[in-house]
Amino acid sequence: MSVDILQERIRKLKNPTMVCISPSALEIPMQIKDQVKQEYGETLKAAAEAYKLFSFGILDCLKDIVPAVSVVSGSFTALGADGVAAMQEVLQYAKRLGYYVLLDMMRCDLGQTADMLAASCFGTIQVGGQGYTPYECDGVLMSGYLGSDSVKPFTSYCSQGKNVFIIARSSNKSAREVQDLLSGDRVVYQVMADLAMRWSTGLFGKTGFSEIGIAVGATNTDVLKRLRSKYEQLFFLVPGFGAQGAGAKDAQYAFDRFGRGAAILAGRSILYAYQKHDDGGSNYQQYAIAAAEKMREQILSYITIY
Amino acid sequence: MSVDILQERIRKLKNPTMVCISPSALEIPMQIKDQVKQEYGETLKAAAEAYKLFSFGILDCLKDIVPAVSVVSGSFTALGADGVAAMQEVLQYAKRLGYYVLLDMMRCDLGQTADMLAASCFGTIQVGGQGYTPYECDGVLMSGYLGSDSVKPFTSYCSQGKNVFIIARSSNKSAREVQDLLSGDRVVYQVMADLAMRWSTGLFGKTGFSEIGIAVGATNTDVLKRLRSKYEQLFFLVPGFGAQGAGAKDAQYAFDRFGRGAAILAGRSILYAYQKHDDGGSNYQQYAIAAAEKMREQILSYITIY
Repeated sequence: MSVDILQERIRKLKNPTMVCISPSALEIPMQIKDQVKQEYGETLKAAAEAYKLFSFGILDCLKDIVPAVSVVSGSFTALGADGVAAMQEVLQYAKRLGYYVLLDMMRCDLGQTADMLAASCFGTIQVGGQGYTPYECDGVLMSGYLGSDSVKPFTSYCSQGKNVFIIARSSNKSAREVQDLLSGDRVVYQVMADLAMRWSTGLFGKTGFSEIGIAVGATNTDVLKRLRSKYEQLFFLVPGFGAQGAGAKDAQYAFDRFGRGAAILAGRSILYAYQKHDDGGSNYQQYAIAAAEKMREQILSYITIY
Repeated sequence: MSVDILQERIRKLKNPTMVCISPSALEIPMQIKDQVKQEYGETLKAAAEAYKLFSFGILDCLKDIVPAVSVVSGSFTALGADGVAAMQEVLQYAKRLGYYVLLDMMRCDLGQTADMLAASCFGTIQVGGQGYTPYECDGVLMSGYLGSDSVKPFTSYCSQGKNVFIIARSSNKSAREVQDLLSGDRVVYQVMADLAMRWSTGLFGKTGFSEIGIAVGATNTDVLKRLRSKYEQLFFLVPGFGAQGAGAKDAQYAFDRFGRGAAILAGRSILYAYQKHDDGGSNYQQYAIAAAEKMREQILSYITIY
């Protein structure tokens, strides 16, 4: 089961973090921007190439420290087709380096469109006699607002070793507007978690966790505690660490008593760690490594992974 | 205001429909598939080229009948970067032909990622001294599950003539699982509509409608009636017509007493109308025209557009 592989990689590296590969044109180190400008000028292709080189650099330097990455589709998609081409290469490269690879889709689709998107990540897109998987990955993060029939096309691959994570409670301030609404005795994000459990039938791995998990922000520790105690069999992806304000003290509540069942997401605080130092970005890898090691230590000061 | 332009185009063509450009590899007419195969073989590039040619063909033949199109990003995205490149061309082509062009994103993103995505549709992505708008369009359809701060990056362009439509109540069967939950005296989809109204301050056009609208499925007429009477100032995008089971009799409730304030979405029933006839697709345009005209007549048998 794929969730077992994720948990095993976390245990082996003694690090329950997942780094978000979300490049941003403004923050990519200058030497990478200069390099692509020479070859591609001031084009979207140049920006996409810079995203790719920077992502490759981050993936290279963290591969023995960080077990998993989340490739943020929105970042790459904003650059158009060139950005999406770069993202496909980043997904492949991360897989080749041995990472557990999540595609952060942040989508919700229906019918044939959902079927095709699920196939593009987990199955094959058939063109005549040839099959392609443009976004091959181990898991996706998506929205469940449209309900079961929007998620089923993806979860139908869970029995073949793929994971689906549903946004239950996001880490942003306005999350409460919809996600915290109380309906009967359940809050909306609990309804999402209940749906994830319902879809999980027959999909539990050796570690006891389901192939279907949820995303729960670290910025609200009450929510985190409540969900962890109620949904022992759901693996949590936990955004909100670092740049968004939550720390290891908050994130600790995402784990069960064996230090399992969660991966803490961090993006900017690791990718752009170099900005806190006056070197213009030429040593961005060194600072990313230091930030990732520090994050690991912080988390391990609160939990022990068995 | 952009919503006024949409309403005016509807009035002028006396047709409140929006055609969903959602190509599907399996259903594209054979002669288009043969044509691209000769040039590109059995590749994703070939499939993307077929999507593009078919979309162009549909856009060409409906331009004097249909006022607006929704380009379904999921369909094109499933083909990887080649599909996205084709989508960018389809968006441009639709605009050039004079359509009101919606990008059906079906996304929800946060922070810098949302900022960049909004800029990629409504503003400019800056690469050094050059600016690009890979997905230039008049409006987007997106999810509001993450709340105000996920939507703001997009609605901040509404004062510059762009529309944002939020999924309130989708047309699929499982929509009820989350969207129909009752919280206090409001159902979740009403909360979405209330948020759309709250975000609309200062964004009402001459026709009285807000630049921010909602999507409400035609498959549940009770919902449609309730929302129409309660949210007089929100423009509705109404999926679920045709292939999904709803008819003009249901969709009529999306309009106000002046026959305004809504566009009925239809995809498969128009794009693949040729499949009901035994010609293998060589006259797909003729059948698409007939289906679009029939849909228009059906709707106009229930409403009058003033």
